[in-house]
Amino acid sequence: MSAMAGLKPQHFLWRMEGRVAVVQLDRPDRKNPLTFESYAELRDTFRALPYADDVDAVVFLPNGGNFCSGGDVHDIIGPLVGMDMKGLLAFTRMTGDLVKAMIACNKPIIAAVDGVAVGAGAIIAMAADLRLATPEAKTAFLFTRVGLAGCDMGACAMLPRIIGQGRAAELLYTGRSMSAEEGERWGFFNRLVAADALETEALDMAARIAAGPTFAHGITKTQLNQEWSMGLEQAIEAEAQAQAICMQTRDFERAYRAFVAKEKPVFEGN
Amino acid sequence: MSAMAGLKPQHFLWRMEGRVAVVQLDRPDRKNPLTFESYAELRDTFRALPYADDVDAVVFLPNGGNFCSGGDVHDIIGPLVGMDMKGLLAFTRMTGDLVKAMIACNKPIIAAVDGVAVGAGAIIAMAADLRLATPEAKTAFLFTRVGLAGCDMGACAMLPRIIGQGRAAELLYTGRSMSAEEGERWGFFNRLVAADALETEALDMAARIAAGPTFAHGITKTQLNQEWSMGLEQAIEAEAQAQAICMQTRDFERAYRAFVAKEKPVFEGN
Amino acid sequence: MSAMAGLKPQHFLWRMEGRVAVVQLDRPDRKNPLTFESYAELRDTFRALPYADDVDAVVFLPNGGNFCSGGDVHDIIGPLVGMDMKGLLAFTRMTGDLVKAMIACNKPIIAAVDGVAVGAGAIIAMAADLRLATPEAKTAFLFTRVGLAGCDMGACAMLPRIIGQGRAAELLYTGRSMSAEEGERWGFFNRLVAADALETEALDMAARIAAGPTFAHGITKTQLNQEWSMGLEQAIEAEAQAQAICMQTRDFERAYRAFVAKEKPVFEGN
Repeated sequence: MSAMAGLKPQHFLWRMEGRVAVVQLDRPDRKNPLTFESYAELRDTFRALPYADDVDAVVFLPNGGNFCSGGDVHDIIGPLVGMDMKGLLAFTRMTGDLVKAMIACNKPIIAAVDGVAVGAGAIIAMAADLRLATPEAKTAFLFTRVGLAGCDMGACAMLPRIIGQGRAAELLYTGRSMSAEEGERWGFFNRLVAADALETEALDMAARIAAGPTFAHGITKTQLNQEWSMGLEQAIEAEAQAQAICMQTRDFERAYRAFVAKEKPVFEGN
Repeated sequence: MSAMAGLKPQHFLWRMEGRVAVVQLDRPDRKNPLTFESYAELRDTFRALPYADDVDAVVFLPNGGNFCSGGDVHDIIGPLVGMDMKGLLAFTRMTGDLVKAMIACNKPIIAAVDGVAVGAGAIIAMAADLRLATPEAKTAFLFTRVGLAGCDMGACAMLPRIIGQGRAAELLYTGRSMSAEEGERWGFFNRLVAADALETEALDMAARIAAGPTFAHGITKTQLNQEWSMGLEQAIEAEAQAQAICMQTRDFERAYRAFVAKEKPVFEGN
Repeated sequence: MSAMAGLKPQHFLWRMEGRVAVVQLDRPDRKNPLTFESYAELRDTFRALPYADDVDAVVFLPNGGNFCSGGDVHDIIGPLVGMDMKGLLAFTRMTGDLVKAMIACNKPIIAAVDGVAVGAGAIIAMAADLRLATPEAKTAFLFTRVGLAGCDMGACAMLPRIIGQGRAAELLYTGRSMSAEEGERWGFFNRLVAADALETEALDMAARIAAGPTFAHGITKTQLNQEWSMGLEQAIEAEAQAQAICMQTRDFERAYRAFVAKEKPVFEGN
């Protein structure tokens, strides 16, 4: 196991609030675009997370009133135009690898969206486990606006399961913004909060989750993704096995003893 | 084929209303917890249902203002703490087998939720085909509160398909109660009805469904579960075969003759 | 490649609005039922669409205030009663083939629903990519009313992904009408518009989509259907490949050059 509290990434901000890691892109003047470098560093950071013993949850915060404006037109789209297939596939796989790393990182991720969350920014929000937003959040899967398909980084698989096939199709074919109110009504956002409360609410939610049985949370995350394409009977057997594992944790015993003693359980993640 | 009208279960209540079987847990003083015994007896009852010629639908009713408080802390959680893996897996498979039996029982199941539906109680409601609730219903997948994962009895597979991936993730990671109003808005509950009308409405709905073409209903239930992880083209071919089977039933002919005669069809389930 | 603008179907209306094909059933006096002949001709038309160079999107319009009343009782249901299994399966496969052809046609399809959309009419709306409706639209999967199962032409696979498993189950077991307001709230309809604006709005939406990168739209449609039963990691890799293909189109370059020149991109679908 390793510690990640001391991480000093070069292309985004990273800090710890207790055992919650906080990630922020750091180009607020340009609404926080992604670059080749920040993509790669985010991917590597999420890939390291399963082994981090000091991180129990992750919060993606906006910066300067915006979440993320996606792949930078000058730094990313320009170089991609005219690149050969080997280079293009290396790029699309790197972006997909960020989503795979978020999914496999074993810790719940909360996205706190304010302002713009577009293109790959919308994808990062989508690939989180939970999503809060301000009423000003504008989320757009605008790949079609730059001549591309809606199938970017898993969107055609994940978005329909979050908001339904028909709503996902509209967002992906038209590239139009989903308003915050729509996002809440459609199940994309778990809750809307005022901009000045967003950080506190997201960190509170993460802290409450981090105070739970974190080993079991990791299993919940694994199963939510693992059962994606299982048959129903196979999923039920997979859960019987996964939950039996959790019943041998000391956190399960701690909860039982606390209940009997009429106390609040203190979980330790093992 | 067998008859189940005369069933005398020891660990829950069972009665017939016409051809609709009514199930109620029977520990209202403790909000109807499940025990090892009631789990096993429910599993065996649902396993017998496909062969029952006198039951066309099932209604799960609350008792004393509550639906089900889940696995009893003293009768179930206590013994599980410290149990070896063989015993734990036997238990989680038994609970999963209840859901498998509900899914495979070949008759539509309606859950009528009032008061508390938590833990395995929430799962039973989730594993039903249709759900009514009172405004007072509180549904919580509170496994995380007892140190466990959200993947219990199929929840990570089924809940996202009912209410969407993001909302399911919140309920499973936090264990918080879903209000009745949220449940209706999110598609968990088909409708909310006042507490004093719940039983009547649930039995009416079941009676209307039982008055339909019950052989075809069994095929609908089979396909809703069977196509869960099929490709789209495979699902369409599977439905072509399944519906062709239904077109050879006499109920299909009865409906046609009734239409021509401007009468209401009387279905007989064959 | 072929041109379809000059198509003269015998069993439905077909016209072009720019590069948008407009389809209308044409028995308004009987709310536009389907017949063996119109099923087959629709299937063949959608099967030809992938090769049509002059069509970029399809709009299904109502006719005389109704969308489609489904399989005609006299022309279809009558002959099916008593037909042997070979004939029945040939029929259910033909209807399923229409849905398969709509899914594989490579162009976005918009259904504009007014009045009645029932039985196979509801299925055609469901199999479209986007759906508009008037407040008067009544959509019913009423197969159960004619003694059949809800699993018709893919409904048990597709409807749950559009509106959620619980709501789909209610519509399929009871055959009841989904109101337009429910349809919008549940994600079946993307938007409700007044009856006198429906055609204009649907054609506008189609024209905007047709003005986008149509090669990429075809890939979006392919992936939305292709990833249906993939695992999450497989879907992400599939999208990396699919999007890399789109990055070699000239439309991607056109969008970039337009952005740099502060102009609106003009896409050409290659």
